[in-house]
Amino acid sequence: MLDPQGRAITKALQGHGHEDIVDVRQGKFFEIELAQGDSPEGVRERLERLAAEVLANPVIEDYEVTVLDAP
Amino acid sequence: MLDPQGRAITKALQGHGHEDIVDVRQGKFFEIELAQGDSPEGVRERLERLAAEVLANPVIEDYEVTVLDAP
Repeated sequence: MLDPQGRAITKALQGHGHEDIVDVRQGKFFEIELAQGDSPEGVRERLERLAAEVLANPVIEDYEVTVLDAP
Repeated sequence: MLDPQGRAITKALQGHGHEDIVDVRQGKFFEIELAQGDSPEGVRERLERLAAEVLANPVIEDYEVTVLDAP
Protein backbone atom coordinates (compact mmCIF):
# COMPACT_ATOMS: atom_id res chain seq x y z
CA MET A 1 0.00 0.00 0.00
CA LEU A 2 1.10 3.58 -0.64
CA ASP A 3 1.71 5.47 2.59
CA PRO A 4 1.96 9.18 1.74
CA GLN A 5 2.10 10.21 5.39
CA GLY A 6 4.95 7.79 6.09
CA ARG A 7 6.71 9.13 3.01
CA ALA A 8 6.34 12.71 4.25
CA ILE A 9 7.71 11.76 7.69
CA THR A 10 10.69 9.99 6.05
CA LYS A 11 11.54 13.11 4.05
CA ALA A 12 11.14 15.38 7.08
CA LEU A 13 13.40 13.25 9.27
CA GLN A 14 16.02 12.92 6.52
CA GLY A 15 16.00 16.70 6.20
CA HIS A 16 16.61 17.05 9.93
CA GLY A 17 19.88 15.13 9.98
CA HIS A 18 18.55 11.56 9.98
CA GLU A 19 19.87 10.62 6.55
CA ASP A 20 20.10 6.95 7.55
CA ILE A 21 16.32 6.67 7.99
CA VAL A 22 15.39 5.01 4.71
CA ASP A 23 11.68 4.41 5.25
CA VAL A 24 8.87 5.17 7.69
CA ARG A 25 5.46 3.52 7.58
CA GLN A 26 2.74 5.07 9.66
CA GLY A 27 -0.46 3.42 10.76
CA LYS A 28 -3.08 2.98 13.43
CA PHE A 29 -3.49 0.24 15.99
CA PHE A 30 -6.47 -0.81 18.08
CA GLU A 31 -5.93 -2.75 21.33
CA ILE A 32 -9.26 -4.46 21.92
CA GLU A 33 -10.01 -6.10 25.25
CA LEU A 34 -12.78 -8.69 25.36
CA ALA A 35 -14.57 -10.26 28.30
CA GLN A 36 -13.90 -13.96 28.64
CA GLY A 37 -16.28 -16.30 26.85
CA ASP A 38 -15.63 -16.62 23.14
CA SER A 39 -13.05 -19.13 21.87
CA PRO A 40 -9.76 -17.84 20.40
CA GLU A 41 -11.01 -18.94 16.96
CA GLY A 42 -14.33 -17.17 17.47
CA VAL A 43 -12.54 -14.05 18.68
CA ARG A 44 -10.21 -14.04 15.67
CA GLU A 45 -13.07 -14.46 13.24
CA ARG A 46 -15.04 -11.58 14.76
CA LEU A 47 -11.99 -9.30 14.92
CA GLU A 48 -11.09 -10.05 11.28
CA ARG A 49 -14.61 -9.03 10.34
CA LEU A 50 -14.51 -5.91 12.54
CA ALA A 51 -11.17 -4.92 11.00
CA ALA A 52 -12.39 -5.39 7.43
CA GLU A 53 -15.83 -3.85 7.87
CA VAL A 54 -15.46 -1.23 10.58
CA LEU A 55 -11.96 -0.35 11.75
CA ALA A 56 -9.95 -0.30 8.52
CA ASN A 57 -10.66 1.13 5.10
CA PRO A 58 -9.57 -1.83 2.94
CA VAL A 59 -9.34 0.36 -0.17
CA ILE A 60 -6.42 2.35 1.23
CA GLU A 61 -5.31 0.40 4.32
CA ASP A 62 -3.83 -3.00 5.04
CA TYR A 63 -4.60 -4.63 8.35
CA GLU A 64 -3.39 -7.48 10.51
CA VAL A 65 -5.15 -9.14 13.44
CA THR A 66 -3.18 -10.64 16.33
CA VAL A 67 -5.02 -12.43 19.16
CA LEU A 68 -3.18 -12.32 22.49
CA ASP A 69 -3.95 -14.15 25.72
CA ALA A 70 -5.06 -12.17 28.74
CA PRO A 71 -2.00 -10.78 30.57
CA MET B 1 -3.55 8.37 29.51
CA LEU B 2 -7.13 9.20 28.59
CA ASP B 3 -8.07 7.90 25.15
CA PRO B 4 -11.35 9.55 24.13
CA GLN B 5 -11.23 8.06 20.62
CA GLY B 6 -10.74 4.54 22.01
CA ARG B 7 -13.63 5.20 24.40
CA ALA B 8 -15.88 6.27 21.52
CA ILE B 9 -14.95 3.15 19.50
CA THR B 10 -15.68 0.95 22.53
CA LYS B 11 -19.16 2.47 22.92
CA ALA B 12 -19.88 2.19 19.18
CA LEU B 13 -18.87 -1.48 19.03
CA GLN B 14 -20.84 -2.31 22.18
CA GLY B 15 -23.86 -0.65 20.59
CA HIS B 16 -23.44 -2.81 17.50
CA GLY B 17 -23.78 -6.13 19.28
CA HIS B 18 -20.25 -6.51 20.66
CA GLU B 19 -21.19 -6.21 24.33
CA ASP B 20 -18.18 -8.32 25.35
CA ILE B 21 -15.73 -5.70 24.09
CA VAL B 22 -14.82 -4.03 27.36
CA ASP B 23 -12.11 -1.62 26.19
CA VAL B 24 -10.44 -0.32 23.02
CA ARG B 25 -7.28 1.74 22.99
CA GLN B 26 -6.41 3.47 19.77
CA GLY B 27 -3.00 4.80 18.78
CA LYS B 28 -0.44 5.37 16.06
CA PHE B 29 2.61 3.39 15.15
CA PHE B 30 5.68 4.27 13.12
CA GLU B 31 7.76 1.51 11.52
CA ILE B 32 11.13 3.16 10.96
CA GLU B 33 13.76 1.48 8.79
CA LEU B 34 17.36 2.58 9.20
CA ALA B 35 20.40 1.93 7.04
CA GLN B 36 23.02 -0.21 8.76
CA GLY B 37 25.69 1.64 10.72
CA ASP B 38 24.55 2.79 14.14
CA SER B 39 24.72 0.40 17.11
CA PRO B 40 21.44 -0.93 18.60
CA GLU B 41 22.06 1.29 21.65
CA GLY B 42 22.68 4.32 19.44
CA VAL B 43 19.58 3.55 17.42
CA ARG B 44 17.44 3.20 20.55
CA GLU B 45 18.72 6.47 22.00
CA ARG B 46 17.98 8.38 18.79
CA LEU B 47 14.54 6.82 18.38
CA GLU B 48 13.62 7.60 22.00
CA ARG B 49 14.55 11.22 21.32
CA LEU B 50 12.66 11.27 18.01
CA ALA B 51 9.59 9.80 19.71
CA ALA B 52 9.65 12.31 22.57
CA GLU B 53 10.49 15.39 20.53
CA VAL B 54 9.00 14.79 17.09
CA LEU B 55 6.66 11.83 16.64
CA ALA B 56 4.61 11.87 19.84
CA ASN B 57 2.95 14.64 21.79
CA PRO B 58 4.07 13.69 25.31
CA VAL B 59 1.39 15.89 26.90
CA ILE B 60 -1.42 13.70 25.59
CA GLU B 61 0.32 10.56 24.27
CA ASP B 62 2.34 7.72 25.73
CA TYR B 63 4.95 6.08 23.56
CA GLU B 64 7.08 2.98 23.51
CA VAL B 65 10.17 2.26 21.39
CA THR B 66 11.02 -1.28 20.27
CA VAL B 67 14.22 -1.93 18.30
CA LEU B 68 14.01 -4.95 15.99
CA ASP B 69 16.75 -6.62 13.99
CA ALA B 70 16.64 -6.47 10.22
CA PRO B 71 14.36 -9.21 8.89
